[in-house]
Amino acid sequence: LDRGDGDQVRNLIAPMRPADIAELLDLMRTDERRALVEMLGPELKPEVLSELEEGVRDEVIALLDPGDIAQALAEMDSDDAVYLLEDLDQQGQQEILSQMPADERAALERALEYPEDSAGRLMQRHLVAVPPFWDVGHTIDYMREAEDLPDEFYEIFVVDPAYRPIGTVPLYRVMRSKRPTKISDIMNTEQTLIRVDTDREEVARLFEKYDLISAAVIDENDRLVGVTTVDDIVEVISEEATEDIRLMGGIVNEEAVGDSVALTARNRFSWLFVNLLTAILASVVIGLFDATIEQMVALAVLMPIVASMGGNAGTQTMTVAVRSLATRELGPLNALRFMRRELMVGVVNGILFALLIGAVGGVWFQDAMLGVVLGAAMIVNMVVAAVSGILVPMALDRMNIDPAVASSVFVTTMTDVVGFFAFLGLAAIWLM
Amino acid sequence: LDRGDGDQVRNLIAPMRPADIAELLDLMRTDERRALVEMLGPELKPEVLSELEEGVRDEVIALLDPGDIAQALAEMDSDDAVYLLEDLDQQGQQEILSQMPADERAALERALEYPEDSAGRLMQRHLVAVPPFWDVGHTIDYMREAEDLPDEFYEIFVVDPAYRPIGTVPLYRVMRSKRPTKISDIMNTEQTLIRVDTDREEVARLFEKYDLISAAVIDENDRLVGVTTVDDIVEVISEEATEDIRLMGGIVNEEAVGDSVALTARNRFSWLFVNLLTAILASVVIGLFDATIEQMVALAVLMPIVASMGGNAGTQTMTVAVRSLATRELGPLNALRFMRRELMVGVVNGILFALLIGAVGGVWFQDAMLGVVLGAAMIVNMVVAAVSGILVPMALDRMNIDPAVASSVFVTTMTDVVGFFAFLGLAAIWLM
Repeated sequence: LDRGDGDQVRNLIAPMRPADIAELLDLMRTDERRALVEMLGPELKPEVLSELEEGVRDEVIALLDPGDIAQALAEMDSDDAVYLLEDLDQQGQQEILSQMPADERAALERALEYPEDSAGRLMQRHLVAVPPFWDVGHTIDYMREAEDLPDEFYEIFVVDPAYRPIGTVPLYRVMRSKRPTKISDIMNTEQTLIRVDTDREEVARLFEKYDLISAAVIDENDRLVGVTTVDDIVEVISEEATEDIRLMGGIVNEEAVGDSVALTARNRFSWLFVNLLTAILASVVIGLFDATIEQMVALAVLMPIVASMGGNAGTQTMTVAVRSLATRELGPLNALRFMRRELMVGVVNGILFALLIGAVGGVWFQDAMLGVVLGAAMIVNMVVAAVSGILVPMALDRMNIDPAVASSVFVTTMTDVVGFFAFLGLAAIWLM
Repeated sequence: LDRGDGDQVRNLIAPMRPADIAELLDLMRTDERRALVEMLGPELKPEVLSELEEGVRDEVIALLDPGDIAQALAEMDSDDAVYLLEDLDQQGQQEILSQMPADERAALERALEYPEDSAGRLMQRHLVAVPPFWDVGHTIDYMREAEDLPDEFYEIFVVDPAYRPIGTVPLYRVMRSKRPTKISDIMNTEQTLIRVDTDREEVARLFEKYDLISAAVIDENDRLVGVTTVDDIVEVISEEATEDIRLMGGIVNEEAVGDSVALTARNRFSWLFVNLLTAILASVVIGLFDATIEQMVALAVLMPIVASMGGNAGTQTMTVAVRSLATRELGPLNALRFMRRELMVGVVNGILFALLIGAVGGVWFQDAMLGVVLGAAMIVNMVVAAVSGILVPMALDRMNIDPAVASSVFVTTMTDVVGFFAFLGLAAIWLM
């Protein structure tokens, strides 16, 4: 690549699978990537584009000719085409759409009208739908001859005259049945129907729960409008998990490993700023007791222990609550039992650590009463940690806010403030 | 259920899908669950068992007759049977295996010999394999008549005389080809082969990368021994994400929402104990400067801000590093660039927050020099946060330790210790 030897590069790239080429492009430096894309030009397969990371994809699309992209999109399955288009800005979308055949363009424009992250964006428009009175032989002949079939499919859908889905037949069952068998005799009537406006996280949950390979998507009139397949869902599950991990780690905006310093610093700033405010709040609490600390410096030495233990215990409870809410293992049916358990765990571990740290503090500063104060503050803070670790995520969830976004800042603020207040407050009473 | 009306309960349960019954059982109280399982008895479908959560599953299996379970397992696909058996203890496994037909038992015992979390445990033994010289008609006829086919399949595998896979044909392609077409003419030779000892996390990564629906599993002699399907992979991806979230939140052992107080308290204790030691270490650092704090109590009030900001910035960097390592977005090719960026982000945000908090501290305590010391300590700690936020997970990954397990304790210990040391140390020099 450095030598600009286009032929050799093309020969090396030619046998690679699209996902591997995409991975290579993702990992390259920007200038290397630019050189490679320019060398490959129209030989770059459209499948590579859909496998690229978002930031990199935008960059590569900007390097390509809109006409070439439009042609590639027209040949793709509609779900992949939407996936590529939806992240471009309005102008970029228009530039590409305007060069596409009218019917493909209309279909894509309709798909882009569905809300972001909805089943309508994920679904593939082409599918195989047959009436229940066809037999297996007729169905196979139809599939052999029809033009407008999806590139890949695993199930055929059975529809009534109003195009409402009434059942599904997996391909292996079609294949294993004799030609005169009626479709209605081998179809599953137990189907999972997905409304076109369902959030993709909910769609993923249905696929996971019922072990689906594909599922029918219906519009507000219960008519079949598309199909969602599991390969898209695998991506959704992985992306949603990354999002939860990111949010819980204090990364509020989406980030890619290749982002610039300026963008990354700005993205991280907002969360750190919120944390600065809460840290100042904790300092104000400490400031209330400056006279007490002046009286006994040991308090300043020991006070971070109480806050830190509370923060960690609260984070444990919160982590379990946030993840269990996301996977629906925690719901109204068992919420009360969960709260009771977490509270008891807080009390039990609070007492154990109170004994441990009380002994350490008492021996360290040769003051038994200091140990008692430390231990008492520890119990208070561990219980507060448990309570806020449950209530904060559940309250956010109830308000339809993703608990992963904000739980940790509320919980650690609580445990910091209460930790310092309980320890220094008890010490002030004792020293008076 | 409370009235013990078995018939009515059975009528309510009968039309439900296995996954829904499993969800109901998961959410019930232990005594309710016991009553329901006893009421349903052998009417409880085996599919329900494989959808239950681990702890609940063990409980339900203990309530059922080993003979009934053995019979259910014999009828299941081998991957589901292994999934149910692998979590039982040795004795429970033997009890059930001994009541199974000899050939099914031998197959399951062989599957259980593969390492836990390997492709060998995930795979389904039954599959459709045909030689390349068959034509489509012959293949369809074979599938219509063969007995030992899997319950569900989406691809057929093409093998050479030594049973080594040489290609795959998706069912839709078989279906869309005319009967005289040779299999070798429609097969994909670009296949993803999975070694039987591959870790399931790696298997999931391959499925995600190449958008697979199923993939051939081969033994050490490259012979086809099974097939992994995407429905199992969806579960793996979700479980691995839960594991990462759990570990990063300080939940070291697997937990279920239904676990007892004693078990949960014990599980959480170990992590909190490690945190206690690191918190004491931070206190020892503060203790080194007790004379300095005695001189100026404002230091005790402000010092948690420096530690907390460093902890949060370090957690941000660490979260991105851990997740990017897990998804392979961060690798040797771009590690250096990533480190340079994180370091620069640390410097930039360090300077910004130094100015902010320096001003706040200076105004609050009417002491410009205190603000300078605070700001300088902030820059030092933000840079240390960035460096440890990258190096700790990358070092753990290099040592083949899951970075999600231990990164956060190392990183926050670093930022606590350095935060207190830098701030109090600089203050001590200034006050001298």
